[in-house]
Amino acid sequence: MKIIIAPDSFKGSISANDATKAIERGIKRYMPQAQTILVPVADGGEGTLDCLIAAAGGTKVPATVTGPLGVLVAAEYGLLEPDQTAVIEMASASGLYLIPTEKRNPLVATTYGTGELIRKALDAGCRSFLLALGGSATNDGGAGMLQALGMKLLDAEGNSVGYGGGTLSRIAVIDDSEWDPRIAESRFLIASDVQNPFVGAQGASHVFGPQKGATPEIVEKLELNMVAWADLIAAKTGKRVHELPGAGAAGGISGAFLAFFEASIKRGIDIVIEYSRLQDHLQGADLVITGEGQIDFQTASGKTPMGIAQEAKKFGVPTICLAGSVGRGIEALYEVGITSVHSIVTGPMTLQEAMSRAAELLEQTAEQVIRSFDAQAKQ
Amino acid sequence: MKIIIAPDSFKGSISANDATKAIERGIKRYMPQAQTILVPVADGGEGTLDCLIAAAGGTKVPATVTGPLGVLVAAEYGLLEPDQTAVIEMASASGLYLIPTEKRNPLVATTYGTGELIRKALDAGCRSFLLALGGSATNDGGAGMLQALGMKLLDAEGNSVGYGGGTLSRIAVIDDSEWDPRIAESRFLIASDVQNPFVGAQGASHVFGPQKGATPEIVEKLELNMVAWADLIAAKTGKRVHELPGAGAAGGISGAFLAFFEASIKRGIDIVIEYSRLQDHLQGADLVITGEGQIDFQTASGKTPMGIAQEAKKFGVPTICLAGSVGRGIEALYEVGITSVHSIVTGPMTLQEAMSRAAELLEQTAEQVIRSFDAQAKQ
Repeated sequence: MKIIIAPDSFKGSISANDATKAIERGIKRYMPQAQTILVPVADGGEGTLDCLIAAAGGTKVPATVTGPLGVLVAAEYGLLEPDQTAVIEMASASGLYLIPTEKRNPLVATTYGTGELIRKALDAGCRSFLLALGGSATNDGGAGMLQALGMKLLDAEGNSVGYGGGTLSRIAVIDDSEWDPRIAESRFLIASDVQNPFVGAQGASHVFGPQKGATPEIVEKLELNMVAWADLIAAKTGKRVHELPGAGAAGGISGAFLAFFEASIKRGIDIVIEYSRLQDHLQGADLVITGEGQIDFQTASGKTPMGIAQEAKKFGVPTICLAGSVGRGIEALYEVGITSVHSIVTGPMTLQEAMSRAAELLEQTAEQVIRSFDAQAKQ
Repeated sequence: MKIIIAPDSFKGSISANDATKAIERGIKRYMPQAQTILVPVADGGEGTLDCLIAAAGGTKVPATVTGPLGVLVAAEYGLLEPDQTAVIEMASASGLYLIPTEKRNPLVATTYGTGELIRKALDAGCRSFLLALGGSATNDGGAGMLQALGMKLLDAEGNSVGYGGGTLSRIAVIDDSEWDPRIAESRFLIASDVQNPFVGAQGASHVFGPQKGATPEIVEKLELNMVAWADLIAAKTGKRVHELPGAGAAGGISGAFLAFFEASIKRGIDIVIEYSRLQDHLQGADLVITGEGQIDFQTASGKTPMGIAQEAKKFGVPTICLAGSVGRGIEALYEVGITSVHSIVTGPMTLQEAMSRAAELLEQTAEQVIRSFDAQAKQ
């Protein structure tokens, strides 16, 4: 039996890689001779780099860059073996997790470090980029990233405006005289599931500002600044990112990429699927096991298990989903190709216990599921 | 697809009957055309009468009898349609649940009411009896039951010794001059999984006394009394119940049946299986779903799911087990015929929540399990 094991991470509990191995152990306990294909996956957020390296081969390159609040941080980018694509996980340089909760403030947080990561990869010869935008601390419309790559953002007096979402309204001139010429030679693929536009009620500031530490007053300030910044971008590049779907991802850095770079957006899970050669693996497969920490009706609108199941469905391969917690409305998942959903929790227990025992619970549940799956065939 | 649904009750949470229906609802949500055979089961304890009536057809006959502490209680016995067998659930007349915790004391609790239930069934014409012994409050070696059927238990002065496990050592004479003659015309089948002997370290008093309210001192007193009583029984009937396996069930009432009645013991689940015609149903079945509140390695040594799985295995039908909580060592279950074990808990939650949501969780899990079971066939 050929089984593809393709879970996302169980957030806060177990990485996609470890989840994959735990599921494999469970399967092999029942069926030692099963052919297991290990495809840890991610949706473009946390863990995407690890999954891509696991899928395609590659290395991580350490790089010290400017953190979201200006303090240097030890970041890294990935170098995928097959095509020397650089994988930039924005969170590595400009992530929310780098700032203690009480210091989070998108008025000051900058994407400068993300730009530095790109510059270092350019220095290393990379001209193909994959940008994973999840988990950012910023709402600066990509201004800092542009600055790190040579774009001068000047106020009316010709001075640099500084950094962070709070400075955008003071920008009078976008000066590209020192803009890195290698950008024009490069291609950028943005991994993002976000459909939000740059500004407006569904824009970056209103939708994602609060979870980055913005109070309602700060959200209003950010929104005004982003509108002014979008107007400037349009004047400079001829591209209107204001209402552009997806331009609002990661505090609007997506909009800056789309305006100033040769960039396109693709659903994170689809990029990971492509690199992992899931379609090749699905040939002749009997079963796909995917999983994620929380499964509910929202899963049907864009999380990892759905992406996996959609692909498997094309090949007529059933997909069974394991989850730490199974919420309401999972009927919506059947249509996208998920056959069934099983919780890994083996009895009444606290969230903390379930999270700390995730590997063991995944292993046990995977074994029981494969036993049930195989029961009919064995008759 | 033909599916047999045969769970036990989930103790304290949902009856076998309701569990059966919940599982059926889950299956039918996915497979409305499935042929479902509903076989709620029990192991001879609580719920056995309901399962037998569900399996074989029959009625419940109300009967007011003497409770374990002498107060009248509203009890009942069952009358099975096919063969007019009377089902006596001992707990109905002499059950632990009839006494508040603080009043539980096997020195005084009597099986008299169980004897009265038998007498009432004899009056109704029954000569075939099925005795479900689970849940008793007593440790009187069946003395009270014998008294209710005309056996006089007298002290050295020729007076009745009274009732309860505390009186046994005062019995000097077993006078059967008024013994109900219909007993000799009747056959008694004891439904019990208990292998414990009448007396000794593994006997009724030591093993079951404490859970009936006996302190260590009371256990010692009960044990001495039971030895004296066993000696008297041997002298009267020529049968030594002292070390007889199973004679210690339900405070030793089993020993009294075996000595004074034409009685035999059978595993509770096997009796229920027989009445439910499980073997007939297993012909051509694709799957059995069983279940119980708690599943672990102990399940392999005598609980309902094992009995069901053993039977299904003979017909090559896989058995999937649903449980509120899945404990350690379930590998031991595979050998007896259980294919897999799935918890009904869908995420981190308290025991109380799981128990109060049992029907809903059973329904959801049954649907997911049947989906996984059927996935391979559908390819």
